[in-house]
Amino acid sequence: MQQRIKFLVMDLEGVLVPEVWIAFAEKTGIKELRLTTRDIADYDQLMRHRLRVLKENSLKLADIQEVIAGMEPLPGANEYLQWLRQKCQFAILSDTFYEFAAPLMRKLHHPTLLCNSLVCDDQDNIIDYKMRQLDGKRHAVLALKQLNYEVMAMGDSFNDIAMLREAELGILFRPSELVIKQYPEFQVCTEYQQVMEIIEKEISGNN
Amino acid sequence: MQQRIKFLVMDLEGVLVPEVWIAFAEKTGIKELRLTTRDIADYDQLMRHRLRVLKENSLKLADIQEVIAGMEPLPGANEYLQWLRQKCQFAILSDTFYEFAAPLMRKLHHPTLLCNSLVCDDQDNIIDYKMRQLDGKRHAVLALKQLNYEVMAMGDSFNDIAMLREAELGILFRPSELVIKQYPEFQVCTEYQQVMEIIEKEISGNN
Repeated sequence: MQQRIKFLVMDLEGVLVPEVWIAFAEKTGIKELRLTTRDIADYDQLMRHRLRVLKENSLKLADIQEVIAGMEPLPGANEYLQWLRQKCQFAILSDTFYEFAAPLMRKLHHPTLLCNSLVCDDQDNIIDYKMRQLDGKRHAVLALKQLNYEVMAMGDSFNDIAMLREAELGILFRPSELVIKQYPEFQVCTEYQQVMEIIEKEISGNN
Repeated sequence: MQQRIKFLVMDLEGVLVPEVWIAFAEKTGIKELRLTTRDIADYDQLMRHRLRVLKENSLKLADIQEVIAGMEPLPGANEYLQWLRQKCQFAILSDTFYEFAAPLMRKLHHPTLLCNSLVCDDQDNIIDYKMRQLDGKRHAVLALKQLNYEVMAMGDSFNDIAMLREAELGILFRPSELVIKQYPEFQVCTEYQQVMEIIEKEISGNN
């Protein structure tokens, strides 16, 4: 039976690059920026908190981009992407913002990225953010399926589960113990090499 | 009013690389491969003709890929894509096949490509082809619109018109006189610089 063409979607933070807000909190020494969705479950509330802290510390978009520009992809991430480019089409699905991701995208050689955007004022202050759509990762998988691709998905955390579920194959990459326990239906990989083996199998149809 | 995030879709042949079948016919000296949809309007009939000619000339997939690997992107295409990567997300929408496009994608530094696939037998002979879906370019634009992107499209010929019409902005790049006459509703560009100026305007919202 002939197979549909494969398309891989991947999360960004925790999968290809470090968690941006945590790295940013470390680099700036601002502890209040370490809070994540584990501390404040409501994403909008969390983002409002972050924007408030940025404002209090007079951090403009350019300052943040400069700090992010100092970050590096996870070890092995670029070799993995380079391998992937020979194997299948892929895109990154992230809850981050284009303005934050830009310096890291350059270091990953510009893969296609579907994410969200920030709103800045004339003085380069971040005054708001804009989610492109609700449940964006899952909708992107749905869109690819409508284009008749067979979708493989790779993510690390709770906000990736809907995407992994919608895909034909879901891979958890370096998830927390809590995520593994709650979602035992997904394969777990801790190294890119394991992901490459799964993808190789899927593409050659020997699965 | 806040704008939606822009996404650019582009045709491949005639826009970023030469017409593959024509270049292939020239390199191999096989005149029957010069026929295009202008000579045989029915695409399936045309492809059957091409596959028959390849078989008659004992040309396997690897032979064709080798010839295609000798082709180069259009002058300025890579500089244009490099500029584009700093500006917005984009993908290439083509009626070609992944197996043919691969060598050219490497030369374009692996942009995301949505196209079709070939079916080969165990001896590397191309025995069939598979369109991913009917009217694939237009469906890709629709999918991006559903993901809440504002879509700009760029193509050169009849098979791009549905994509250009579905997009919020349509650009004809180096079209034939016939195409210009039949579709006067689209902007016409003959140089990448003109395209860059239009995109720059669109992104900055000064349109």
